[in-house]
Amino acid sequence: MATILTVEDAYPGVDAELLKKACHGWGTDEKAVISILAHRNAPQRKLIREAYKDMYGEDLVKRLEHELSGDLERAVYRWNLDPADRNAVLANVALRKEHRDHRVFIELSCTLSPEELFDVKRAYQCRYKRSLEEDIASHTSDDLRKLLVGLVSIHRYQGDEVNLKLANSESSILRNAIEEKTFNHEEILRIITTRSKPQLMATLNHYKDEHGCNMTKQLKDDRANEYTETLRTTIRCMSDPIKYFEKVIRNAVKKSGTNEDALTRVIVTRAEKDLKIIMDQYQKRNSVPLDHVIAKETSGHYKRFLLALLGKDE
Amino acid sequence: MATILTVEDAYPGVDAELLKKACHGWGTDEKAVISILAHRNAPQRKLIREAYKDMYGEDLVKRLEHELSGDLERAVYRWNLDPADRNAVLANVALRKEHRDHRVFIELSCTLSPEELFDVKRAYQCRYKRSLEEDIASHTSDDLRKLLVGLVSIHRYQGDEVNLKLANSESSILRNAIEEKTFNHEEILRIITTRSKPQLMATLNHYKDEHGCNMTKQLKDDRANEYTETLRTTIRCMSDPIKYFEKVIRNAVKKSGTNEDALTRVIVTRAEKDLKIIMDQYQKRNSVPLDHVIAKETSGHYKRFLLALLGKDE
Repeated sequence: MATILTVEDAYPGVDAELLKKACHGWGTDEKAVISILAHRNAPQRKLIREAYKDMYGEDLVKRLEHELSGDLERAVYRWNLDPADRNAVLANVALRKEHRDHRVFIELSCTLSPEELFDVKRAYQCRYKRSLEEDIASHTSDDLRKLLVGLVSIHRYQGDEVNLKLANSESSILRNAIEEKTFNHEEILRIITTRSKPQLMATLNHYKDEHGCNMTKQLKDDRANEYTETLRTTIRCMSDPIKYFEKVIRNAVKKSGTNEDALTRVIVTRAEKDLKIIMDQYQKRNSVPLDHVIAKETSGHYKRFLLALLGKDE
Repeated sequence: MATILTVEDAYPGVDAELLKKACHGWGTDEKAVISILAHRNAPQRKLIREAYKDMYGEDLVKRLEHELSGDLERAVYRWNLDPADRNAVLANVALRKEHRDHRVFIELSCTLSPEELFDVKRAYQCRYKRSLEEDIASHTSDDLRKLLVGLVSIHRYQGDEVNLKLANSESSILRNAIEEKTFNHEEILRIITTRSKPQLMATLNHYKDEHGCNMTKQLKDDRANEYTETLRTTIRCMSDPIKYFEKVIRNAVKKSGTNEDALTRVIVTRAEKDLKIIMDQYQKRNSVPLDHVIAKETSGHYKRFLLALLGKDE
């Protein structure tokens, strides 16, 4: 369930004209920009960009990038892009950061269909003149490389069929590897990166039934490192994306200093999909509505924009 | 350049009727089957299958599988399938063989566009209810698994841009790994499986210029095994697919006992693409026309079918 409140009878030409006015002269009318764009869905925003280009001969995305600044600029920029192109940008930004945020790659792998992931890779190549896989591979090494490249490159089976015998035997393979503390065992990597989601869930459920404990718990010990953390996060995101996104948001707002990048990413990528359910989960888990927390932890036009995407305009 | 001689004004309904007649009663008129199907291109064959289904309520591919036998049956079966579906079948057959033929996976990776490869994976899932990657991963292990899964899963950059500085530095990385005889070095795998073809060619050319020898030559030593052989074959197929296919055919017909599987695969998959150039290369390399060799090494209706696909009807 989406959160944004859209207008059914929006006119792209009128919107483009209002956005042009909002950008005119000294200073920008951020409120006007937000009041339009936060209430248009992806196809509507695309039509606005096209109308703007036809009417004024310039790229609206670039124009707004120039007009706005800081967290608002980054949020509006991401929001304005087509979903595949946006994910390509998020992936590239994640790679270029000093402290890489591997969750972007996990989200691509665990929440997109193979067709959507293929479109992201195409958009990535078009934008950066390199492949997503080669960039991930050349920015990482060892086990983490194997895991991340496997996640974004392998096309998982999409059917619902589950082979319970296979789940049983692969649960034992995982158990043996974990008992030996070889968390980077090639069979763990194979099972996690290649099996279909329903098959993997059956294997993990079998693991839990047999050993009385989630596999993710047992991956957390003194040997924990970037690779095991990424492996655990992958399993959590695949098992329950709603809980996973709730946790990303919780971590983004709970610490001293909000992680605006993560907060923006989840809100912008989920606002037209399942953000309503993520918000419900947030309230259930933290006993406080997400919009109250965001209103407290962020400020200015950035706050206004996020709240509008949450369907909570002031 | 294709080899098959097609008929421009073919009528799918008439062809379907003639095929039905050829299958009627005791015995099959193989000559009639060959005279029609070997002279229709992929879109025409698809229309014939559709017409046959409409007119007789049965699947022509299955019907012919039942009517024909041996090498001819396998060749006609592969020829009748859509290219993506055919490649899915070839990949699955290769995995199920006792002596797996990894060249099928190399050919998928090195000769298809990302879109074509994506279609093969979709066809594979539809047919076998599993993904191509999980099947390759569960039938192989260690370095060979890493190489083959990387080859079929990674979406290489399709542009022509080459970064010569990168080619230079990656050529040194390859050289160091080879000097240390660590042919399974993770950097060799990364470079071979993720870089775009033009970039990889630049790296391998730089390698040759600097070290006076092809990298493939240096991968051939006493440590040669299934993995290094597959790595060498991959580099050869990517560097020059025509020479690669010529060699596959040469090996298929030169030994005592023809390798019909390999011969059929190359002829069926290339007949509508570049088989003419492969035949020219064969003649140049072996001083004898390929059709003469095939006429000598094969027999019966299978021979007749292959020659028809080569554009050399008796």
